[in-house]
Amino acid sequence: MSRFLAERYASLVAYTPGEQPTDMKYIKLNTNESPFPPSKGVLDAINTDAVSALRLYPDPECGILKEKIAKQYGFAKENIFVSNGSDDILNFSFMAFCDGKKCGVAFPEISYGFYKVYADLYGVDAKMLPLAEDFSVSAEEYCNIGRTVVIANPNAPTGIALSVREVERIVASNPDHVVVIDEAYVDFGAESCIELVHQYDNLLVVRTYSKSFSMAGARLGFAIGGRELIADLDKIKYSTNPYNINRLTLLAGAAAMDDYDYYMENCRKIVANRAYTTEALTSLGFEVLPSKANFVFARSKKIGGEALYTKLKKRGILVRHFKTEKIKDFNRITIGTLGEMKSLVAAVEAILGEAAGEE
Amino acid sequence: MSRFLAERYASLVAYTPGEQPTDMKYIKLNTNESPFPPSKGVLDAINTDAVSALRLYPDPECGILKEKIAKQYGFAKENIFVSNGSDDILNFSFMAFCDGKKCGVAFPEISYGFYKVYADLYGVDAKMLPLAEDFSVSAEEYCNIGRTVVIANPNAPTGIALSVREVERIVASNPDHVVVIDEAYVDFGAESCIELVHQYDNLLVVRTYSKSFSMAGARLGFAIGGRELIADLDKIKYSTNPYNINRLTLLAGAAAMDDYDYYMENCRKIVANRAYTTEALTSLGFEVLPSKANFVFARSKKIGGEALYTKLKKRGILVRHFKTEKIKDFNRITIGTLGEMKSLVAAVEAILGEAAGEE
Repeated sequence: MSRFLAERYASLVAYTPGEQPTDMKYIKLNTNESPFPPSKGVLDAINTDAVSALRLYPDPECGILKEKIAKQYGFAKENIFVSNGSDDILNFSFMAFCDGKKCGVAFPEISYGFYKVYADLYGVDAKMLPLAEDFSVSAEEYCNIGRTVVIANPNAPTGIALSVREVERIVASNPDHVVVIDEAYVDFGAESCIELVHQYDNLLVVRTYSKSFSMAGARLGFAIGGRELIADLDKIKYSTNPYNINRLTLLAGAAAMDDYDYYMENCRKIVANRAYTTEALTSLGFEVLPSKANFVFARSKKIGGEALYTKLKKRGILVRHFKTEKIKDFNRITIGTLGEMKSLVAAVEAILGEAAGEE
Repeated sequence: MSRFLAERYASLVAYTPGEQPTDMKYIKLNTNESPFPPSKGVLDAINTDAVSALRLYPDPECGILKEKIAKQYGFAKENIFVSNGSDDILNFSFMAFCDGKKCGVAFPEISYGFYKVYADLYGVDAKMLPLAEDFSVSAEEYCNIGRTVVIANPNAPTGIALSVREVERIVASNPDHVVVIDEAYVDFGAESCIELVHQYDNLLVVRTYSKSFSMAGARLGFAIGGRELIADLDKIKYSTNPYNINRLTLLAGAAAMDDYDYYMENCRKIVANRAYTTEALTSLGFEVLPSKANFVFARSKKIGGEALYTKLKKRGILVRHFKTEKIKDFNRITIGTLGEMKSLVAAVEAILGEAAGEE
């Protein structure tokens, strides 16, 4: 820290992204990326003409992209906000809709780690509610809470989802506060609550191209909400970095919407591979939480979470382990191709065998 | 504005980007883009393999890109910050180095319009110093000012530059405050102050790929500064949106550094075209400020700034006009190819002829 840094950031602890080691080639099951490449339409859209046109600024209004997204999900363009990844949208949401100490925010204690970072960054009083015994989000506790609410649905790193009815109760019971539902993982089998946007002006649904649309590297997220909420987010974007989506990502994002079916078919494959993985790990004695996401969260009484993570890494398989006390026995395992999941299961089996041999 | 927006943003006025009309094909001389495409290395780097790899997150540390920039400019990787355009870096600098009311910021009254937006966004007390009679930045007035200082050098929209010696006096006389020198346009003939970074821990030099590197559409900026300032900016980036540069832009930015000579040759062409434009407009009776940037700022007693802007637009040529009282007689004209500048000069001549005919 320099002697010039604003005092309010002195104790801020930044987010730690999942590791991206380059010492060897890993089976990467640690950052919830898609094992499938972007669609042919995306590959075609990023051609030499598009690269040559990089000399020009992108359209800050992202008009064509917004139109494609709006059409796909049955909204008007004015209901769509797009920005540099869903992190960017969450960041803007904390700026816009959490008025410091006056308002406050509530989110699950075990969830996407960035929510706490944003609350700290903007000095927002954060109420972090414990998960239920079964690691689900206790929807009831967010009703009438009188704070901005942020919930990942399905939640990370558990993969457990709330129903639309549960989300609606939270939204309806907090009419004077924005409820942000982070649907980064919704395409893998959970219920989306976007239809509720037609009814509630305090609901903002955040989506990303990083997971189901195979474009974590393109940096694109979008949000669906009432026109006024969207206008607020645009105001923040135009006051920080109006051109934050580059020309090639704009093209890729629009082309991906045209190839929507390809991506949904990929999601079905992931769901099938998740079923395989869940069954195989359960057979090996793991407890696997009921996931609706492109990852599973699993623990075993036979081996500690960190030990399994370390042994898998030595065998060339990266998964994500969190040192947080309540979930330290678990690992979060991204669902990749069936081949990758078979390699994972074989490695886990071998590691458990070694552990038993050592006893 | 929704009823949910944080009160502190109620009166915030966002930045207005230059217009990007799509009603016809214009000669675009309004947003200071380069008329030259990115280099062959950039075109080659963004290939099918790179697009396929979009399924994976980019390297948040931007390691390879930082190394290339560091090597090009003679610094260590730890002296380099990279982010989503120089706007993004300026935004982070206002967050990090202006501690609200306690510190305050100073910048020229006539300069890049975004500085005022950032000050308002973060509630920073802004002292906006008038330009000198000749539209230059009065360096003397920033000495010992006891505030964070932000100066575009060359300044926009005037194009007038300070010397390194003048910048050094500002930096040396404000040892307890950060001085941000925004060198977006420096490659077109001004003196860069990056060498001062070796001597002063309070100097941050901000650069962009949008102008001299022909990549406004890729969204990439970098800053050079002491290791501690850079670490502060990284802390803010990792607390808002760590992956804000996409994979293709990372590749393009690295490839562009390998083709540095191509871009500097383009800058020499722009400087020559600027000399042509300056001379031609001067012959037509314009006052053209002495520009070291890829634009000129010019006014004529024969026609008002807005009238000229409007008449040029009707003829298919876009320039930028600002309604701000002190500069409303001027237009900012981006320097494009010689052909484009000849078209501009011919159009101006014709417009002046019409105006004379109407008298």
